[in-house]
Amino acid sequence: MIKQYEIKLPVLGRGFHLIDHIIRGEIKDLPQSGLVNIFLQHTSAALALNENADPTVRMDFESFVSRMIPDDPSLFKHTLEGPDDMPAHLKSSLFGQSVTIPVTNGRLKTGTWQGIYLCEFRDHPQSRKITVSVLS
Amino acid sequence: MIKQYEIKLPVLGRGFHLIDHIIRGEIKDLPQSGLVNIFLQHTSAALALNENADPTVRMDFESFVSRMIPDDPSLFKHTLEGPDDMPAHLKSSLFGQSVTIPVTNGRLKTGTWQGIYLCEFRDHPQSRKITVSVLS
Amino acid sequence: MIKQYEIKLPVLGRGFHLIDHIIRGEIKDLPQSGLVNIFLQHTSAALALNENADPTVRMDFESFVSRMIPDDPSLFKHTLEGPDDMPAHLKSSLFGQSVTIPVTNGRLKTGTWQGIYLCEFRDHPQSRKITVSVLS
Repeated sequence: MIKQYEIKLPVLGRGFHLIDHIIRGEIKDLPQSGLVNIFLQHTSAALALNENADPTVRMDFESFVSRMIPDDPSLFKHTLEGPDDMPAHLKSSLFGQSVTIPVTNGRLKTGTWQGIYLCEFRDHPQSRKITVSVLS
Repeated sequence: MIKQYEIKLPVLGRGFHLIDHIIRGEIKDLPQSGLVNIFLQHTSAALALNENADPTVRMDFESFVSRMIPDDPSLFKHTLEGPDDMPAHLKSSLFGQSVTIPVTNGRLKTGTWQGIYLCEFRDHPQSRKITVSVLS
Repeated sequence: MIKQYEIKLPVLGRGFHLIDHIIRGEIKDLPQSGLVNIFLQHTSAALALNENADPTVRMDFESFVSRMIPDDPSLFKHTLEGPDDMPAHLKSSLFGQSVTIPVTNGRLKTGTWQGIYLCEFRDHPQSRKITVSVLS
C-alpha cells in the first residue's frame, strides 16, 4: 500500500535547514513496518540526512560546498539566471533530490543524529514542494 | 505489487544526456499512485535528475565535474583501464546509480524542470543497462 | 510486503570497504521480484555501489575524496569532535546514506562489477548499524 502527502515548505534562505518537524508533522500515521521516500520537485535544491544537533555543522555545509562549487560565472555557459544558478544545479544532483528512510514500530528509523535537511542553493528561493510516499 | 522493466540504452557519448523519452516510452502503464526506482547496473556512469530545458546546463555539468575530478593518472593507482576510468568510478558514486520518483495520477511526479539524466563518464562507453521497478 | 533486517557491521577502519558478503549473508530469502533498500543510521559514514574487483579502486576513493574534502580545521567552525569529523559529515551526504537495488529471480540485480561499499570517514570509528528493507 502506498500513501502520499504533498508538502509545501516555507521559503527558507540559501543554506542547509532542518525540516524534520515539518515532515513528521504531516505524516503522522506511519505503519508498523514500512519505507518512506521523500522527494523534492526541484533542480536547484536538494534533500539530505545529516547532523541534527550543532547548527555550525549546517553553516559549514553551506560554506564548504559553495567553496567547492563557486558562484563564478567564468566557469559556466548557463549564466542567464544568475551566478548562483548553475552551481545550484550541480549541488542539487550531487546531494540528490530524494531520501528513503525505513519505518519500524511506527517511527522513522533514522539514527540518533540524523536530521532531514532541505539544502537550499538559490540566493532568492521560492517555496519548495515535496512529495512523501509511505510504503507499507 | 512490483513490476519490472529491463531497458538497454543506446550508446551515448561522454557527457550528460536526457533519457526521459526512453524511460517513459518503456513504462507506459503506471499505477494511479506508486513509486518508481530506476537503477543503473554500472560503476562508471550514473543517473540523476536535473534541468531539462537548456542544453548548456548539461555541458556545464560535464565540464565542471571533469574539472573537479580530473582525468589525471598521477592522482590514482587504478589507471590500467585509462585515465578516464577512476574518475568515472568516483563520479558514479557521487551522483549515484539510481533515482526514485513518486507516481501520482498515473504519471511520474517530477517537477516542471526535472529531467532524467544518464551521466556517461567514459570516453568510449558501451550500451548501459537499466532496471525500472514500479511499486504500487 | 515489507521485511526488515537489522545488521550491525564489524568495526571497519577509515576507508572504503566491500560489505556484500555481510549483507547477502543476512538477507537470504529474497523474493522473486522486489526492491531492497539498505539504510545506514549514521552521519559520518555512507553507503555506495562501486567496483568490486580491484582493491586499488577503494584506495583511490579514500585518497581522492580526502583530498577533495580535507581534514583541515581552518575550513570549518564545527571542529570539537576532531579534524576528520566535519569532512566526514560532508562526505556522508555527498555519497548518501542509503542504496536501493532491484531484486529479480530471487537475487540482487546488481551489475557484474557493482559491489556494496561501506564508506567509513572517521579515523576512530565504532560499529555501524544498517537497516535492510525488502519490498515484494
